[in-house]
Amino acid sequence: MARLAVATRAFSASASAGAGAGGVAMVQGASRGIGLEFVRQLLRRSDQGRVVATCRAPGSAAELQKLKEEHAPGRLTVLPIDVTDEGTIEAAAASIGETHGSLDLLINSTGILSIPNVIQPETTLSKVQKSSLLLAYEVNAVGPILVIKHMWPLLKAGGRSETGRGFSLVANMSARVSSIGDNGLGGWHAYRASKTALNQLTKTVSVEFGRKDNIACILLHPGTVDTDLSRPFQKNVPKDKLFTREFSVQKLLSIIDNVKKSDNGKFFAWDGEEIPW
Amino acid sequence: MARLAVATRAFSASASAGAGAGGVAMVQGASRGIGLEFVRQLLRRSDQGRVVATCRAPGSAAELQKLKEEHAPGRLTVLPIDVTDEGTIEAAAASIGETHGSLDLLINSTGILSIPNVIQPETTLSKVQKSSLLLAYEVNAVGPILVIKHMWPLLKAGGRSETGRGFSLVANMSARVSSIGDNGLGGWHAYRASKTALNQLTKTVSVEFGRKDNIACILLHPGTVDTDLSRPFQKNVPKDKLFTREFSVQKLLSIIDNVKKSDNGKFFAWDGEEIPW
Ligand SMILES: NC(=O)c1ccc[n+]([C@@H]2O[C@H](COP(=O)([O-])OP(=O)(O)OC[C@H]3O[C@@H](n4cnc5c(N)ncnc54)[C@H](OP(=O)(O)O)[C@@H]3O)[C@@H](O)[C@H]2O)c1
Ligand SMILES: NC(=O)c1ccc[n+]([C@@H]2O[C@H](COP(=O)([O-])OP(=O)(O)OC[C@H]3O[C@@H](n4cnc5c(N)ncnc54)[C@H](OP(=O)(O)O)[C@@H]3O)[C@@H](O)[C@H]2O)c1
Repeated sequence: MARLAVATRAFSASASAGAGAGGVAMVQGASRGIGLEFVRQLLRRSDQGRVVATCRAPGSAAELQKLKEEHAPGRLTVLPIDVTDEGTIEAAAASIGETHGSLDLLINSTGILSIPNVIQPETTLSKVQKSSLLLAYEVNAVGPILVIKHMWPLLKAGGRSETGRGFSLVANMSARVSSIGDNGLGGWHAYRASKTALNQLTKTVSVEFGRKDNIACILLHPGTVDTDLSRPFQKNVPKDKLFTREFSVQKLLSIIDNVKKSDNGKFFAWDGEEIPW
Repeated sequence: MARLAVATRAFSASASAGAGAGGVAMVQGASRGIGLEFVRQLLRRSDQGRVVATCRAPGSAAELQKLKEEHAPGRLTVLPIDVTDEGTIEAAAASIGETHGSLDLLINSTGILSIPNVIQPETTLSKVQKSSLLLAYEVNAVGPILVIKHMWPLLKAGGRSETGRGFSLVANMSARVSSIGDNGLGGWHAYRASKTALNQLTKTVSVEFGRKDNIACILLHPGTVDTDLSRPFQKNVPKDKLFTREFSVQKLLSIIDNVKKSDNGKFFAWDGEEIPW
């Protein structure tokens, strides 16, 4: 497996290098967890880059509203997107078009694994439910692809050299358990299949972008990260394998900063290692 | 890539070797195309094997009804299954349980690629529709897994030595375009993603079966086969690459006959070659 050459440079509040330095970055699924931490670190790394954070309920996204107040006007825009409601995606695209005119980076962080009384990771085939398979697919696979579809014109208009990259980048949050080749444990049918489908959809989109556009797409595995999503399943995770959000997002931003156009369509773990399909 | 050691023996009406010789084989999605041809060849290869063919509308499945009349009573049972209606799957499992008590082979052949005015393979991201993504997923990925879920007790009861195999086998019809690693063309987002998810679901199920049961699961790519499914897309297929149903199913049955327990979870093309994920 190839490994992305990630410069081992420290990140700090004053670091101005990297793709977030200038330009417009959008983080979709930013109310909590890894998405929220992306917003925090993107805002911290320069005083120029603008960030669009989307979530289902901006009004009650206290952390995002706090970040907005802490930064200069215009640096953080918070917009509503529920990925299961395509109209909200179209409306956000229109709004970003008016305010910013383009996007240089799009991070899709939305994901569901368990929701009490709605969806639970399956421990056996006999617990597989049609409703869970469809819901996980709608949120984890269909959602991010519809976001890319509607942000496509903005991504085409982005990729400015001031971002230090020279092309627009889409980063979709996948998960190692999406790897079919690496699936030795079984279980988690709905989540696995939805993320595997996300991998295929991202690869499919990357082929078209590679042919026509100055845009690349990658898939990321953040490691096992201490968030609401992983909390019910942390029992058997060794302490040193459970990452903080800060650590994981530093690593992921390092990948995002160092990615090359030729990495289009690839799937990287937090440490830069490529994950097999 | 590994290649399955497929004995190059000719198939004929009198061939009694192979897994279909005795036991009970179920073909799901048998009204037309590859599924119907599986039924035809399974019935032809011995005078003992019993076949359960399922389709959405047995009453109007003229070819299946004709096959039923042509064979001895009890050799072919035709039952209704619409994979989007889980109740029909449960009812079929109950009926097979009563009549046969077990299953030695389950072939899931159902699949959709295009339906006029409903779903069309996408040529570009801008044509990707949520409704198509969800429909393809429901039929191509969720459907076969629900069938395996409900047939599981019957598969556990099967795998008799008289079938020449010694374990029960599930064969799911996938497609080469489901391979992420092999996706150099792009397009066909909904179909690709649904089949990639089917691959992951099949692998996930195979892990559990490998641990507990005398059942193996494999995925098959039939080649490009002259059926209703491929017809609208045959224009650019070279003549010698467009297989007859007879040829493809002979090849696939040869794989099914020669598969070993250790092939559990693998994805084979019609020629026995393993397809990368
Ligand atoms: N944490 C891990 O160990 C881990 C490991 C591998 C991969 N991942 C992936 O990393 C990504 C981020 O996970 P996380 O750990 O940060 O999860 P998290 O803390 O549970 O956050 C999930 C986010 O997704 C949002 N979301 C859920 N449904 C949505 C919808 N319909 N529309 C828009 N947003 C929606 C949530 O918004 P609300 O606040 O509105 O619910 C929340 O912001 C996910 O894709 C996850 O699969 C995480
Ligand atoms: N032909 C190829 O070149 C090719 C290539 C790669 C993979 N495949 C795969 O091979 C399999 C067989 O394809 P084919 O070429 O034989 O296709 P086909 O001739 O179009 O037959 C499709 C079958 O699926 C059934 N079906 C559709 N929706 C269903 C549902 N909701 N519930 C139950 N059955 C349903 C159809 O039944 P109705 O008659 O009721 O519609 C029909 O029997 C598919 O999985 C396909 O993806 C085919």
